[in-house]
Amino acid sequence: MTKLNTQPYKGARDIYPEEMRLQNYIFDTWKRVCNRYCFEQYSFPVLENFEVFSAKSGQEIVNEQLFSFEDKGGRKVALRPELTPSTVRMIAEKFNILPQPIKWFMIGDNWRYEKPQKGRGREFYQLEVNIFGIDEVTADFEILSVATDILKEFGANETMFEIRFSDRRLVNLLLNDVLKLDFETATEVRRIMDKRAKMSESDFVSILTEMGLSPEYGEAVEKFLGSSLETLPDVIDLDVLKTNKGYENIMNLSLLLGKSGLLKYCRFDPSIIRGFEYSDGLVYEIYDKNVENSRSLFGGERFDGLITIFGNYKLGATGFAMGDITLAEFLKGWKLIPNFDDALDYFVTLWPGTDSRYLEKSLEVASKLRQDGKKVFTWLQSDTKIDKQLKYADKKNAKFAIIIGDAEIKSNKMIIKDMRSGQQKELEM
Amino acid sequence: MTKLNTQPYKGARDIYPEEMRLQNYIFDTWKRVCNRYCFEQYSFPVLENFEVFSAKSGQEIVNEQLFSFEDKGGRKVALRPELTPSTVRMIAEKFNILPQPIKWFMIGDNWRYEKPQKGRGREFYQLEVNIFGIDEVTADFEILSVATDILKEFGANETMFEIRFSDRRLVNLLLNDVLKLDFETATEVRRIMDKRAKMSESDFVSILTEMGLSPEYGEAVEKFLGSSLETLPDVIDLDVLKTNKGYENIMNLSLLLGKSGLLKYCRFDPSIIRGFEYSDGLVYEIYDKNVENSRSLFGGERFDGLITIFGNYKLGATGFAMGDITLAEFLKGWKLIPNFDDALDYFVTLWPGTDSRYLEKSLEVASKLRQDGKKVFTWLQSDTKIDKQLKYADKKNAKFAIIIGDAEIKSNKMIIKDMRSGQQKELEM
Repeated sequence: MTKLNTQPYKGARDIYPEEMRLQNYIFDTWKRVCNRYCFEQYSFPVLENFEVFSAKSGQEIVNEQLFSFEDKGGRKVALRPELTPSTVRMIAEKFNILPQPIKWFMIGDNWRYEKPQKGRGREFYQLEVNIFGIDEVTADFEILSVATDILKEFGANETMFEIRFSDRRLVNLLLNDVLKLDFETATEVRRIMDKRAKMSESDFVSILTEMGLSPEYGEAVEKFLGSSLETLPDVIDLDVLKTNKGYENIMNLSLLLGKSGLLKYCRFDPSIIRGFEYSDGLVYEIYDKNVENSRSLFGGERFDGLITIFGNYKLGATGFAMGDITLAEFLKGWKLIPNFDDALDYFVTLWPGTDSRYLEKSLEVASKLRQDGKKVFTWLQSDTKIDKQLKYADKKNAKFAIIIGDAEIKSNKMIIKDMRSGQQKELEM
Repeated sequence: MTKLNTQPYKGARDIYPEEMRLQNYIFDTWKRVCNRYCFEQYSFPVLENFEVFSAKSGQEIVNEQLFSFEDKGGRKVALRPELTPSTVRMIAEKFNILPQPIKWFMIGDNWRYEKPQKGRGREFYQLEVNIFGIDEVTADFEILSVATDILKEFGANETMFEIRFSDRRLVNLLLNDVLKLDFETATEVRRIMDKRAKMSESDFVSILTEMGLSPEYGEAVEKFLGSSLETLPDVIDLDVLKTNKGYENIMNLSLLLGKSGLLKYCRFDPSIIRGFEYSDGLVYEIYDKNVENSRSLFGGERFDGLITIFGNYKLGATGFAMGDITLAEFLKGWKLIPNFDDALDYFVTLWPGTDSRYLEKSLEVASKLRQDGKKVFTWLQSDTKIDKQLKYADKKNAKFAIIIGDAEIKSNKMIIKDMRSGQQKELEM
């Protein structure tokens, strides 16, 4: 008979107990910080109605990366490639019942059909954190505080990461109002701007030229992307900027970040665009500052308009999604992964031999220790030399081993061996 | 524009924060007990190579219930309908590296295309618990101890659930050796035996007759299903029984269960068959004893042979899978769901008005409290009456509210309001 492949589905990960400790550490840390901010946890199925993504998730994801198919009833479904649209769907479903503001987080797996590469799989988990029902900058501020606190909780500091933020309304101001591009060209130019970092200046300018932008306009776009709060008025008149909601938002956010001591983690950067169609206010990406591996760890945005695909609701919406694979790479790069204490408390050996009392006594002792909340491993094979059992106990990082042989049964005692010091002592059973 | 449906995919569940507390409670309890037995947690992707299930998961699951499709690269894949086969795949992949015995558990979502009904969705989570590398009855015993301890940890006792166990080798003894049916007929008869409880005796007998069994043989099957340890020798000669590994296993297991005080939870019941093709030793189902809702909560088995679909390995394997939906129904039925303490520690109000110091002070206080590990909710809207904020705080079950207005800023104090008693006091900021 042909034997089946033992590999997982291509680009997805089997997580063995060793790696599971890291995943649990990441998930637990995420949860702890979100709970501290009183965000409430929720969840939804990995399988979703196709249209939820086809509407607004961005053409690359929908056309190239979606795992979609028809179910046996002919429904078009997809594995979620991100957590935001279904989150909004859940809120739309109970829009009139849920008291606002809504502060929610969840952790779930996402699927994208991509070429598997380091730090990027077809399957990845994300922490999704959002505030709904507030259209003020204070919500954006709190979201950035949560993102910062999470990274700090992992032991990271301002030398290791940087939040680069901009505002989609500022990009729209440039493309629609200053350069007066039509909607389609503006959308195309915005998508290329999002990929600017992945190409040379000359390639970038020539793509813009192909789109029909004059060299002058191409230069304005390039200058915009490279500007700071100080040099932005060289690209767009300060009077015009001052009428823009995005600009106002960035100024107010900077003020709040300054007052609360968070500005050292953050920097305005108009080259931040984001690839989702639904971003419509603040946008940001969190960068690893490791010079050998400088790249975006995760990002977020405002998406007040996304809910309108489900109904004519008004709902302030702002949040981010942090992936587990890129985060783990970041933690490894900065040596921030702790040693996990996975020691088991007691390893109860089983005296080799046919006398059934060996097993009965071992099980009895183990059961009592577990009732006291101890982590207890029991050896279950009836004919293993004690030496071999203790070797296994050592591998499993046991603190103490318990040995009950003939002499012990007779005297109603047991031997407790400290696996680190090697010392043994007798105890009443 | 047409608005999209806000319902989740049919038969799958959105989990709002209310219900998430129950899910977290269930998952945390599962984890706690498994950790106490020193089982190690692992995980694998929900999307799996199709063949992993087509081999041995049972015809109903594979032909009717599998969510399967081709990926963009032409690979045949499926959403996992159960957690056992991929677990064995993972062990086969590292067979020579993993030290045995292996005690593993995981929690994950499964997908089956079924008619959605109460207590049964197309998506459900399962706890999968297995011991690998031990072919002795002691491993079966420990697995049943874990199952019992989990239900006890939820507050259940012997009046609420019962473990009914049998052994596939006993079924094979009847069908192959006593009735001497050929392989295919025996398999068909076994499948019908698994469905016996869902049909009348006359329907059952007439189906057996259609399969070519004489009335005498049909009666033997029916008698077998209804027998106890005492009456089993009326169907199969005791001398024959005594040569059967399954019978030996059941006698030894009963002995161990008796010695350890677990027999009050357990009963031999040869009508337990299980629907998987891979069951090849002990089989069991855990039944709700609620007379109004008596049904199987979950089950498990030995499956020593399953690994051979991946390679010529020898691996003792025994374990169970417990589903979250049926468990939640069980807990509800017996009123075992506790009140979840989801109180937030501090609700920091935001004094309405334009003075930016209100916000700054609130954020400062909230940040300090969070640094002390407190759960702190901050109100972020700039123009909400304090009364309305406190109403929301009450809804969110806040223990204390903090109020900082003009007078407080001047005196560098803050008001702390006990939300239960209503009492207020001033504190230095």
